[in-house]
Amino acid sequence: MKKIKVGVAGYGVIGQRLADGVVLQKDMELVGVADVAPTLPIQALFEKGMPYKLFTAVPEKKHLLTDKGIPISGTLEELVQEVDIMLDATSAGVGAKNKELYQKYNTKAVFQGGEKNDVADVFFHGYANYEKGLGADYLKLTSCNTTGLIRAIDCIDRAFDVTKTAMTIIRRVADPGDYHRGLTNALQVETAPSHQALDLMTIMPHIHATGILVHTPVTHGHIITPLVSTKKKMSKDDLISLFQAHPRIRLVRLSDGFLGNASLFKYARDLGNPRGDMYEIAVWEESIVQSGDDWMFAINIPQEAVVIPESIDAIRAALRMQTTGEEGTQQTNMYLNLKG
Amino acid sequence: MKKIKVGVAGYGVIGQRLADGVVLQKDMELVGVADVAPTLPIQALFEKGMPYKLFTAVPEKKHLLTDKGIPISGTLEELVQEVDIMLDATSAGVGAKNKELYQKYNTKAVFQGGEKNDVADVFFHGYANYEKGLGADYLKLTSCNTTGLIRAIDCIDRAFDVTKTAMTIIRRVADPGDYHRGLTNALQVETAPSHQALDLMTIMPHIHATGILVHTPVTHGHIITPLVSTKKKMSKDDLISLFQAHPRIRLVRLSDGFLGNASLFKYARDLGNPRGDMYEIAVWEESIVQSGDDWMFAINIPQEAVVIPESIDAIRAALRMQTTGEEGTQQTNMYLNLKG
Amino acid sequence: MKKIKVGVAGYGVIGQRLADGVVLQKDMELVGVADVAPTLPIQALFEKGMPYKLFTAVPEKKHLLTDKGIPISGTLEELVQEVDIMLDATSAGVGAKNKELYQKYNTKAVFQGGEKNDVADVFFHGYANYEKGLGADYLKLTSCNTTGLIRAIDCIDRAFDVTKTAMTIIRRVADPGDYHRGLTNALQVETAPSHQALDLMTIMPHIHATGILVHTPVTHGHIITPLVSTKKKMSKDDLISLFQAHPRIRLVRLSDGFLGNASLFKYARDLGNPRGDMYEIAVWEESIVQSGDDWMFAINIPQEAVVIPESIDAIRAALRMQTTGEEGTQQTNMYLNLKG
Amino acid sequence: MKKIKVGVAGYGVIGQRLADGVVLQKDMELVGVADVAPTLPIQALFEKGMPYKLFTAVPEKKHLLTDKGIPISGTLEELVQEVDIMLDATSAGVGAKNKELYQKYNTKAVFQGGEKNDVADVFFHGYANYEKGLGADYLKLTSCNTTGLIRAIDCIDRAFDVTKTAMTIIRRVADPGDYHRGLTNALQVETAPSHQALDLMTIMPHIHATGILVHTPVTHGHIITPLVSTKKKMSKDDLISLFQAHPRIRLVRLSDGFLGNASLFKYARDLGNPRGDMYEIAVWEESIVQSGDDWMFAINIPQEAVVIPESIDAIRAALRMQTTGEEGTQQTNMYLNLKG
Repeated sequence: MKKIKVGVAGYGVIGQRLADGVVLQKDMELVGVADVAPTLPIQALFEKGMPYKLFTAVPEKKHLLTDKGIPISGTLEELVQEVDIMLDATSAGVGAKNKELYQKYNTKAVFQGGEKNDVADVFFHGYANYEKGLGADYLKLTSCNTTGLIRAIDCIDRAFDVTKTAMTIIRRVADPGDYHRGLTNALQVETAPSHQALDLMTIMPHIHATGILVHTPVTHGHIITPLVSTKKKMSKDDLISLFQAHPRIRLVRLSDGFLGNASLFKYARDLGNPRGDMYEIAVWEESIVQSGDDWMFAINIPQEAVVIPESIDAIRAALRMQTTGEEGTQQTNMYLNLKG
Repeated sequence: MKKIKVGVAGYGVIGQRLADGVVLQKDMELVGVADVAPTLPIQALFEKGMPYKLFTAVPEKKHLLTDKGIPISGTLEELVQEVDIMLDATSAGVGAKNKELYQKYNTKAVFQGGEKNDVADVFFHGYANYEKGLGADYLKLTSCNTTGLIRAIDCIDRAFDVTKTAMTIIRRVADPGDYHRGLTNALQVETAPSHQALDLMTIMPHIHATGILVHTPVTHGHIITPLVSTKKKMSKDDLISLFQAHPRIRLVRLSDGFLGNASLFKYARDLGNPRGDMYEIAVWEESIVQSGDDWMFAINIPQEAVVIPESIDAIRAALRMQTTGEEGTQQTNMYLNLKG
Repeated sequence: MKKIKVGVAGYGVIGQRLADGVVLQKDMELVGVADVAPTLPIQALFEKGMPYKLFTAVPEKKHLLTDKGIPISGTLEELVQEVDIMLDATSAGVGAKNKELYQKYNTKAVFQGGEKNDVADVFFHGYANYEKGLGADYLKLTSCNTTGLIRAIDCIDRAFDVTKTAMTIIRRVADPGDYHRGLTNALQVETAPSHQALDLMTIMPHIHATGILVHTPVTHGHIITPLVSTKKKMSKDDLISLFQAHPRIRLVRLSDGFLGNASLFKYARDLGNPRGDMYEIAVWEESIVQSGDDWMFAINIPQEAVVIPESIDAIRAALRMQTTGEEGTQQTNMYLNLKG
Repeated sequence: MKKIKVGVAGYGVIGQRLADGVVLQKDMELVGVADVAPTLPIQALFEKGMPYKLFTAVPEKKHLLTDKGIPISGTLEELVQEVDIMLDATSAGVGAKNKELYQKYNTKAVFQGGEKNDVADVFFHGYANYEKGLGADYLKLTSCNTTGLIRAIDCIDRAFDVTKTAMTIIRRVADPGDYHRGLTNALQVETAPSHQALDLMTIMPHIHATGILVHTPVTHGHIITPLVSTKKKMSKDDLISLFQAHPRIRLVRLSDGFLGNASLFKYARDLGNPRGDMYEIAVWEESIVQSGDDWMFAINIPQEAVVIPESIDAIRAALRMQTTGEEGTQQTNMYLNLKG
């Protein structure tokens, strides 16, 4: 079988993980990654012996890389011509500019959550609207929080018909190693409703969603506490069964030592996952509580890696590799070694 | 008019502020404060020239204080005999033991939230159940989070009949200057429902409450995001009016620069409040959102000082200084210079 | 006696405290403070009932203030004409621009550490080079770290002739309430030598100084650990005596409960100091250690208020209110209630 | 060649990494690891399919493990009999108790820095005193800070004869995932001199060392800033050459994006190192400064993995696998893929 050829633009926190994820897909081939300067991820790539080919995103700044002896396999423009689809994980705004290049060569592309919605034809989530992405040229992924949140809401929705949700998002403010942003001894409130709630409604228009986001000075995972209303009555055991059955959700227990977002970060490292990453969101069993007929629970969102599976789903949809969400996500899960 | 005589046991974070609050009440007299060892607050009291008389809580450890030259005016047992009521702000568990002393001399007492409920005859909140405290001998205050939360819920309840609430509590994990507890780069989830929700139901049994508490590594104020269901329909303007009219609630705006809990801490210092404290909870106007007919908003709880007004209300109720909650809280507010 | 008239430009963290400090000087009069927008400090000033007169720094943006009902007493340009000296605590770079206004009206000015050195005729420290400031028109204060550091080095130098010092500066990265800068779970190293070491050499050219600065994600006080070499031999008791005798240095003990920078922040609040501020640096007795004939110790620098005394010294020098450093600093200390 | 059989007691932060490190040594065989309860590392081991055999350290608590279906290969006592040497990474104090078991079966053991010195015959560092460990039965490793520090001091000492050092240790207060200890918005000073300085003098008695330790609320690496005095004059280039040549030291640059401890943590993850670990300490080139003839620089100590190479050196020494430090460390470095 001919493998789908994939390129990655932007080799930062997300781009690195996209590349790693694509490499695990036996029906895809990573042609290379593109970036501009010798950032730490590029230096690490070089120190590892260039397992991925590197293309320069800005040819006139090529010397930034070559001056350090880092080998370059070509330009982003060349990469775009070689591949079936680009995963664009550049800084917000750059993707919109790159799109001109993708259009020039009729190369499909998947953008990340930082880009504006109008960069894409479809605002995409592997579970919630895979079919909308079928054959699409330009898809935009939901952001990390929204991606993880929709996994949980979608799986409840399929079984019990979600009508509305009101959530609090306790947001990690920076990634490990970030020095360009941070918060010190402060919680920061954002204007509500948060964009995650609005994005959820765009993807799942039959649900009303709202929520308040509060930034916190930590780096290991967001925690979201949605209150979920459903048409059909649901028990705690129902919820637990749904979460346990989902390949991209882990049900964890405080009593097992999973005390918070940092436990999950540590656990993924102890599992030996590459970069200590985790693809799955987690739900704490002891956090599940009832308010009237509604249910509330706490979700952990590992912000660095959570969007990788759905991004790969997007490739499958765009290129019609699988024509239903069930098949598409199943294939991704198999190659990413996600249970179920 | 004869002033009510008040003593304070435990001169820590809460005890210091109780003493300061009592001194501002023109119808009360602070006889003194009791503690054991030359902690930083006691050293500060000494450096200030002993504006409050100090009594030793453990006479056989008196030397800990006298060795540093700190003058002692007697023992806790003597203080208990001199006063009409004790405010007990000792460490959790000590209050229950002190109660024997209070009973021995028929001295009334108000305990703080750390003690078990059965230490007291009444679990008390100045606004929600002042009348239950009338003439009571032993009252226990709600904890800082619950005290602040009930202010908000009670004021909505009076106007629109609250039926239930589901909340997320984003808890500050330590006070400024705490070295005996802390959290570093981690969010910690607690078993739900949180005690604050359960306590709210004890004080306001006609309301169903539940919630999830997450600890965060900050020191300046908890943030609670309750979703509130009411019998009567309520608009955003209704909510804003209620909060604006409440003497112990500040309505603040992100657009005015109140970006989070640290802004409120800073603002109280800039106001020149003693110790940089704030008695009022704050609600962010831009956080108010609707979910169906329910409303959600973000509250700031300044954990060090928030319980002071309700603790003084408790004195008023216990000694029947004012016989209705309206009069009692109004008197407290006047002396604490709270608006309204 | 005619009081010296003082104005303050920039009512932020430093400006507020300069204004408070000037008000305590019985031989000075605070004519007013100038700022542009209704920041939190200005809102607090308004809520307090305008104890200080406010002048608009940018007349064409006056409406930002008047729209909120905040009364304005005139423009910065008018303030400059009314006073003998301006304390400029505006953001870095603005002071250099304001200088044109000060020059236009022959008004002296004291700039803060954020400005470039060439804004001033004299780079000033109340203890280390008071005499250089005598009659000067434009003085620049050392930054918070350097101001506190020089206090300690200068007092050793007077008694034991300091030859060199090598230090580590463990810097707090933001002030309480700062949301525009921060660091999360990271230590950040700066290019060495740090500017504090270079600045020390500018003020005290007979000493060689170098050092490494590391930013830490905290808000309550820098900690500096200088290793100090002296010509004359010095004992631990000598050092302790020097620090104890200094009106702007506190010798504290871990064993008394002063465990770090947050203890000192808490203690100043418990003392009831306005804004919970502390003017004094602190040295930990248990941190003093010897390396050969050199001594090393840990200093706490309360970054928000530490420069206030030396800034007031600068007024005294510039206007020849006292003609020696001994007299000048003594007068400042008396009005600021600093021991000794 | 017969492989040396190794067991690990205590499968926590250090124990896991010791096991991983031993597995990489082609002349050693990891027989198994021992622990008591299903901690997160044990759960991760189970989820990975038990790549290492697990022995129960407390047979009567075996059910804690078996109740979760975790397979047990025997008891710690059995493990001790099967191996040539035990690496004991249990909690402080437990190792001293385990020693009885090791003695009972004449099994050698290497203890970690948390144990008291008298648990061992030799206080060991692979570079500084390998020869002392030759044939020893019980060795204790230096702690993480001391291990990293001695690497740097030893390599200078060999070339330029170090006479004394005075250092500041900026200590990370917890590891990622720790919930049992933490610090929030505070720096904490310890009684000086720090134990690291004293330990250095025990290992390298010809050097005088002292220092001050300050805890900081971060999790990714300590930073130490030693000032080093040498008999022979040394230039900055000399220092750089020494560090560059050392297999367990990385010379890094701020200008390359290595801004602090979190950059190094991130970089190790990006390198794809297991658990995102780094064995090497790092020295920042731009931090190197001179004070008289002495030199000062900033070192990063990755606390979770830094002791692994020297612990493996200890096996080599104890079992006379290589009889000189040069050969022993070289062998360890080769298998751990450390440059040089």
